[in-house]
Amino acid sequence: MSEGSTFGALKQVLVGKPIPSHLAHHERLSKVTGLAVLSSDPLSSVAYATEEIVRTLILAGAGALALSIPIATVIAALLLLVAFSYRQTIHAYPGGGGAYIVAKENLGPIPGLAAAAALLIDYVMTVAVSIAAGVAAVVSAFPRWHVSRTEMCLAFVVLIAIGNLRGIRESGRIFAAPTYFFLASLLSLIAAGAWRAMSGDLTPVPPSGTPTPTGVAVLGTFLVLRAFANGCTAMTGVEAISNGVPAFKPPEARNAATTLIVMAFLCVTLFVGITLLAHAYRVVPQEESAAGYETVVSQVARGVLGGRGPLYYCVQAATMLILVLAANTAFQDFPRLSSILARDRYMPRQFMNQGDRLAFSNGILVLSALAGILIVVFKGDTHALIPLYMIGVFVSFTLSQAGMVRKWRREGGRGWLGSALFNLVGAVSTCVVLVVVAVTKFAEGAWIIVVLIPLVVLWFQSVHNHYARVGAQLSLRGWRPEPRNHNTVLVPIGGVHRAVVQAIQYAKMLSGDVRAVYVDVDPKATEETRREWERWGQGVPLVVLQSAYRSLMEPLLEYIEQVDAERPDDFVTIVLPEFVPARWWHHLLHNQRALLIKGALLFKPNTVVTSVPFHLSK
Amino acid sequence: MSEGSTFGALKQVLVGKPIPSHLAHHERLSKVTGLAVLSSDPLSSVAYATEEIVRTLILAGAGALALSIPIATVIAALLLLVAFSYRQTIHAYPGGGGAYIVAKENLGPIPGLAAAAALLIDYVMTVAVSIAAGVAAVVSAFPRWHVSRTEMCLAFVVLIAIGNLRGIRESGRIFAAPTYFFLASLLSLIAAGAWRAMSGDLTPVPPSGTPTPTGVAVLGTFLVLRAFANGCTAMTGVEAISNGVPAFKPPEARNAATTLIVMAFLCVTLFVGITLLAHAYRVVPQEESAAGYETVVSQVARGVLGGRGPLYYCVQAATMLILVLAANTAFQDFPRLSSILARDRYMPRQFMNQGDRLAFSNGILVLSALAGILIVVFKGDTHALIPLYMIGVFVSFTLSQAGMVRKWRREGGRGWLGSALFNLVGAVSTCVVLVVVAVTKFAEGAWIIVVLIPLVVLWFQSVHNHYARVGAQLSLRGWRPEPRNHNTVLVPIGGVHRAVVQAIQYAKMLSGDVRAVYVDVDPKATEETRREWERWGQGVPLVVLQSAYRSLMEPLLEYIEQVDAERPDDFVTIVLPEFVPARWWHHLLHNQRALLIKGALLFKPNTVVTSVPFHLSK
Repeated sequence: MSEGSTFGALKQVLVGKPIPSHLAHHERLSKVTGLAVLSSDPLSSVAYATEEIVRTLILAGAGALALSIPIATVIAALLLLVAFSYRQTIHAYPGGGGAYIVAKENLGPIPGLAAAAALLIDYVMTVAVSIAAGVAAVVSAFPRWHVSRTEMCLAFVVLIAIGNLRGIRESGRIFAAPTYFFLASLLSLIAAGAWRAMSGDLTPVPPSGTPTPTGVAVLGTFLVLRAFANGCTAMTGVEAISNGVPAFKPPEARNAATTLIVMAFLCVTLFVGITLLAHAYRVVPQEESAAGYETVVSQVARGVLGGRGPLYYCVQAATMLILVLAANTAFQDFPRLSSILARDRYMPRQFMNQGDRLAFSNGILVLSALAGILIVVFKGDTHALIPLYMIGVFVSFTLSQAGMVRKWRREGGRGWLGSALFNLVGAVSTCVVLVVVAVTKFAEGAWIIVVLIPLVVLWFQSVHNHYARVGAQLSLRGWRPEPRNHNTVLVPIGGVHRAVVQAIQYAKMLSGDVRAVYVDVDPKATEETRREWERWGQGVPLVVLQSAYRSLMEPLLEYIEQVDAERPDDFVTIVLPEFVPARWWHHLLHNQRALLIKGALLFKPNTVVTSVPFHLSK
Repeated sequence: MSEGSTFGALKQVLVGKPIPSHLAHHERLSKVTGLAVLSSDPLSSVAYATEEIVRTLILAGAGALALSIPIATVIAALLLLVAFSYRQTIHAYPGGGGAYIVAKENLGPIPGLAAAAALLIDYVMTVAVSIAAGVAAVVSAFPRWHVSRTEMCLAFVVLIAIGNLRGIRESGRIFAAPTYFFLASLLSLIAAGAWRAMSGDLTPVPPSGTPTPTGVAVLGTFLVLRAFANGCTAMTGVEAISNGVPAFKPPEARNAATTLIVMAFLCVTLFVGITLLAHAYRVVPQEESAAGYETVVSQVARGVLGGRGPLYYCVQAATMLILVLAANTAFQDFPRLSSILARDRYMPRQFMNQGDRLAFSNGILVLSALAGILIVVFKGDTHALIPLYMIGVFVSFTLSQAGMVRKWRREGGRGWLGSALFNLVGAVSTCVVLVVVAVTKFAEGAWIIVVLIPLVVLWFQSVHNHYARVGAQLSLRGWRPEPRNHNTVLVPIGGVHRAVVQAIQYAKMLSGDVRAVYVDVDPKATEETRREWERWGQGVPLVVLQSAYRSLMEPLLEYIEQVDAERPDDFVTIVLPEFVPARWWHHLLHNQRALLIKGALLFKPNTVVTSVPFHLSK
């Protein structure tokens, strides 16, 4: 494979060496590494959840900001509720209970597909939102970089995509350090802030950029619900551990369940802690402006740590890293779910993992492209993306919990009612959040996802129907192949040269009935060809076709038609010499006649077009 | 050809029926139709030549406008000189003396190619300038349409391109009416204007738009030369008749020569006439502005005809029509010259006319695309395009005349010295104009063409060298084909279904050595395939390859390598079942494995990849 290996080498440089089958199983995760690998998505949402609440409340004036604390408390309670609800899923689906599987098995194919659509959208949004928030953390620390935010976001997408194409896996090694760095940084920040608040050593943060203008909106139910809906972004990613149960060391389910609860309490601590500190330090959310932009977490860190010192930069770096990791999880989940959907024939089989990394690469490329488009359209602005994010998340939460309720009811067993009730509370509360989000954020972009989910489900179904139809047409059941006995081989030639001689050599090996075909457009050239043919024709008869219209294609197609009519059920093979130029752009200098002939015969049954490559060396 | 004819029918709707060979010769042209067919380009330049002069002179104040008359007189004299010089070319090249042919035969290949490059550029510019000027005529009459000028230009390009793809030919029928309509309108306009001027019934034109601000530049030599260079645009297209000699009725040369001289005198009359009237009616060139834009010819017509009456609209319509016809001539000339260059192997063979209209269509598409780009870049502004126009025109003039001088000198014959001197004067004067244009318009865009011509010549040569190398590699002289005796046929399969069974049927007809190849990635599926194979394998052995890396491609490529090594000089054929979906977008739902395999084997000698189509009906 001398030349072929050039291609292989290039592929290896770009995407890394293939992994032998016996090494394909991931190392199993302990609780410590499991927390690191599967919690970056939920933990990272702490970076923007508080900000999303206060950004809405400020519309009703600075006084309304105090409401952030009760709102955060309700969300924290909901988060714990959902986590405990998912804990039941872990025990019921020790093989991994993604929303698609749970909803499909218990509620039927359509809810399953809706959950799958919601999840795929969710993954795209996770990439866009996490990277936008990560870049916001960078920009908060280095306000000068503010101008090239969209470009920085796209650069991160490309970097993570290349990393994943090369095969960075959910390896504890890579994940543990940044996750625990983040936990340590934020827990220390909260502890220090709490200490300073209690010791009375607290001064409000001086604003650095342009504070959001304090609004005069009435602090009505709708506004509070909107703030609540925005804050629910803290709950995104809670389901990750329940999907990844089989990755844990045995006893898998118990280890996963413990990890899930630890993760939930950590999330609550960070989220409530940041919200309390933001209020204590009188943090006001900032507007985008020419002066730059600073996140709420950055302001809190500045307040607690007394300005931009080394510790402050640690907090920002940790925040950025965990957000990039969160985006990275979507790069694992999107191709995996696509592969499952492709296996079930709901997505094109190009996404089905059949060895190599080809299928996963397709998933990674599609995910990067979609996330990139979102980032460009929404200019890398976290706040603009959030309304689109949560619909997908809460649709899959609700369907998954509802599926669990159905499962308990159907299967019965000891204590089924208690379990069912627990999941029912989960399903109802996430459904309520879903409705609140859809209503309060509808005009801000949530409508896009409300419209998109059914469209994606329809697409899944049309793909499925196509494969079903193809399967029926390919089925061998009760089918009998027609007997074929003859292969007429035609070699259209435009002159006599080495490539033609080689094509005739090849054609003679295929069949006893080989004919060279030449179209007469110029009697002198025809005469010359006839003469050359006597010497080089290898005994193959030369058919000369007349062309009334100076066309080369039409007489040829008519002749093929005529040959086909001689034996309608048998094969006709058209052998064409094809130049393989030494440089790709040389292709532009040669007639694409082979392509034209192939195109013209594409829909003709029993007709095969073969190109015999003739390699040009320079 | 049931389905094949769908393609044919579509092609006929778009580009018309093919023309039988015996009808391909154009009807021969009389002097009257010849003037119409071949003069639209030179005559139409009257529409913008005067304006280009006064636009420059106004920079030195309104008083400088009087200089337009001596400048126009010098240009008129030059035009007659060049016309008489080309009259000699007509007699020397009764077969058609394009600048490429004359320069190549007499000066050598490089000047020939330079002339060809200049001409191709000239044709692109003719389309862009003529259409921009045509739209300016429309906009002058209907100022409200001013805003969508670029769009109108592009619409004209598309219309003319479609017309030419459908095969509008240089038919006297189409050309005679607008050309004589234009001649009649403008000659009447000039006569009426002259009458009113002589009868003292003359009032200056009231300006309609924004007059160009009168400048305060010093009326130095450079400015006068610039005005002169701009006015020389009146000379473009003079060579057209000398290229088209064989289209005339016999005696061809004499008829063409007479037509040329008539055309030259008509051009001079119109150009000098319009320039005199513009001065008499105190026409001031206009700036582009929100109020619209009016050409000098439109202002003259308004002045002479006393406003926008029916006669005024006739003049504008005639101007627009002749300019569109002028653009149309480039749509004939560009593909024709490309075809000649392709025949000489200086351009890709896709431009060589070998029957049908395919080659001409390529020329038409390339010309339209280039002209469209120019129009977009220069926003359909005639004045911005003119500096680019003239370099190409005068390079080809100069090379063609210089070639004639060389020809007379070499051939001698009775009175050669007189003829040579005449052409020498032509060559020198066009060369002087070329230098004046290049110097005075360099910064305004002429530099683009000065740079482009050598680049195009280099491209011609690299294409030529490529074809020469390919020709050497294909040559049969002293070559002996290697004997080939064996064809190993491999059929890679991913399962057993109808398409596979059909591919095996086909493969068995090609060779006695057929092997089905299956890659084992899942032992259960492999077992199933082996079982099915016993029933459906038609006696063909099934080779099962192990895949350490879960890859399908690599074991297959390695096996092909191994098979090839068994008999290095013989053929290996890979037969692949290929789905032909019922709808084009279904392609996206099927693996493009055939394409991948073909790509991987492209550079491997003696390896043929064949797809046996399997037609899906829904």
